[in-house]
Amino acid sequence: MLTQNNSHLQSVLTIETDFDSRMMQKCLQLARRALGKTSPNPLVGAIIVKDGEIVGEGFHPRAGEPHAEIFALRAALENARGATAYVSLEPCNHYGRTPPCTSALIAAGVKKVVVGMVDPNPLVAGGGITRLRDAGIEVVVGVEETACRKLNEGFIHRILYQKPLGTLKFAMTLDGKIATDTGHSAWVTSPDARQVVYQFRVATDAVVVGGNTVRKDNPYLTSHQEGAHNPLRVVMSRNLDLPTDARLWETETAQTLVLTQVGANPQFQAMLRSRAVEVVEMDILTPDRAMNYFYQRGFCNVLWECGGTLAASAIASGAIQKVLAFIAPKIIGGANAPTPVGDLGFTTMTQALSLENVEIRLVGTDCLVEGYLPQKRD
Amino acid sequence: MLTQNNSHLQSVLTIETDFDSRMMQKCLQLARRALGKTSPNPLVGAIIVKDGEIVGEGFHPRAGEPHAEIFALRAALENARGATAYVSLEPCNHYGRTPPCTSALIAAGVKKVVVGMVDPNPLVAGGGITRLRDAGIEVVVGVEETACRKLNEGFIHRILYQKPLGTLKFAMTLDGKIATDTGHSAWVTSPDARQVVYQFRVATDAVVVGGNTVRKDNPYLTSHQEGAHNPLRVVMSRNLDLPTDARLWETETAQTLVLTQVGANPQFQAMLRSRAVEVVEMDILTPDRAMNYFYQRGFCNVLWECGGTLAASAIASGAIQKVLAFIAPKIIGGANAPTPVGDLGFTTMTQALSLENVEIRLVGTDCLVEGYLPQKRD
Repeated sequence: MLTQNNSHLQSVLTIETDFDSRMMQKCLQLARRALGKTSPNPLVGAIIVKDGEIVGEGFHPRAGEPHAEIFALRAALENARGATAYVSLEPCNHYGRTPPCTSALIAAGVKKVVVGMVDPNPLVAGGGITRLRDAGIEVVVGVEETACRKLNEGFIHRILYQKPLGTLKFAMTLDGKIATDTGHSAWVTSPDARQVVYQFRVATDAVVVGGNTVRKDNPYLTSHQEGAHNPLRVVMSRNLDLPTDARLWETETAQTLVLTQVGANPQFQAMLRSRAVEVVEMDILTPDRAMNYFYQRGFCNVLWECGGTLAASAIASGAIQKVLAFIAPKIIGGANAPTPVGDLGFTTMTQALSLENVEIRLVGTDCLVEGYLPQKRD
Repeated sequence: MLTQNNSHLQSVLTIETDFDSRMMQKCLQLARRALGKTSPNPLVGAIIVKDGEIVGEGFHPRAGEPHAEIFALRAALENARGATAYVSLEPCNHYGRTPPCTSALIAAGVKKVVVGMVDPNPLVAGGGITRLRDAGIEVVVGVEETACRKLNEGFIHRILYQKPLGTLKFAMTLDGKIATDTGHSAWVTSPDARQVVYQFRVATDAVVVGGNTVRKDNPYLTSHQEGAHNPLRVVMSRNLDLPTDARLWETETAQTLVLTQVGANPQFQAMLRSRAVEVVEMDILTPDRAMNYFYQRGFCNVLWECGGTLAASAIASGAIQKVLAFIAPKIIGGANAPTPVGDLGFTTMTQALSLENVEIRLVGTDCLVEGYLPQKRD
């Protein structure tokens, strides 16, 4: 009889957990509707469930607007009383641009709150949960936590390290080339892979290239989707030795920022500004200083789509935490053809930076390898 | 009733097919026991089944010895009468070094023969099957055909093109390098991946490198397994500018062949021969001439484990049909670090050689991409 009771209990618990997981995944789906638009805030989704039915849902659309829980509570109206609230990130417990969500949840009379992950800021983590529990609300924490953390990995990195998360993306042939030895690179990967890159751009605050990519590839760097977010397109160029007619100077659909050094080519700067391209002069232009600047602008995610020289410099200066490598199953050859990462100063293979948490998947006919560089604590 | 009868019939047929597939897979397992040892002959396994029980099995151990069917029939003795014979390759119907297997199967009184694949030689294909059918034996053809063809892809290529199958194997970092820019390469991949390479070596007749690999890596090129087949280790070097103390000159566990041009460094040749290294002088040493020579030696499979320069030359000359690329999820950097394939003379990315029948799998922490170059008919 004990066995039967136990198995009955376990089965009830399993069903509840499955339901919680599904609701949390739905929160994440809602959160994703604001991809690329919420920085410096996180992506958050919330759902109110009463008697097994969704009675309200919401997501945080952009900084300055209400949080996800508030939209969900507004939609639920009186149904929130005695209901369960699902929210992908711990509800805030402080007055920022909006009143604390904990107060709103308590005032609405929810009975239970299911939280995907605690606040990544160690100074405030758990405060919201404690406040809710002190008010007599049951709180479950950590449902679909891995997925919740992944969705906001840029935000988390920003909070923990005071820098955006830097992701290096490149596409190479199976023999390790990003272009022919004459520099031709259209296209290394399949249309399917390029669509995935467009999705990455939707989710990022800025895309960075160097002057060489502008000169060789003349890219758009947009997300190529009607109505979708376009990242800020950033060109790093110390001397502004750039073409006058680049596609990046067309700023109707997406903004462009050129980072350069103080005093570089004033006439070219004037031309850029006349075309509504933003120009920022820095004392010394390096990838890590660029990342500091992006932090100050409130960015969470920066995608580096640059060539090997700038990629190496970005890795060496700690600007890159994550790598997205597309590998096309084709052979182009070229003893001097460019490769994804230039000099890092390593002389033995044992010095190589081994990626962590590696995931490999097929994208159309290509292979996508995703992983994280060993984290330097500084 | 009709429906019931039909479903009953289908289920019987399905069971038979499953059984046939399992028996054929067992034939392939048996065949693999002779990996690397049968050239110029194929790898073949055979099983005799009587009343659902295996009563005899065999495989072709090496050229000059009896074929797989003969060993299986010998083991089955009188049980072969009325039995079913499974054989991964169409039984031969001609007198070679041994009498035809079709005669042996007929004489033994088997009732049915299940064949994995027909003889790849278009001039004799189907002859054995016809002979068996003419003798009143039921013949089923094409069970596990894809796996049968894959196991003998080198043999098939040899028959169809009068050349061994050339496979280029390389190991590179996620940023496309096979070594650091100072040439250090131990190790790019994980121990698991290296074990897989050893298995590939067991299955191949020869492993080819150039002088640069001998100088830089000083490899063993053996299968590193007690009792397993070691391929012939081949160094291609026009001028014999090679170290005197290379591991490849140690010929106790595995043989080494140096291919060079007529008249190259006679003293070095003498040194090599004194250490039991075989030396062959060719008028002009090129990858395709090397492959012709390997064909004459009876090889089916040649594994090219060379650097980028020789790899490019081998691809350009049609010596390579298959690519095995190990990709380690690590970043080494190096603007001048060597990459897997040197100059092929391509200037635009659209000229790249797209691999066909691509398979991607994880090997330990590394990724293995396998594919075939577009086949040039010549």
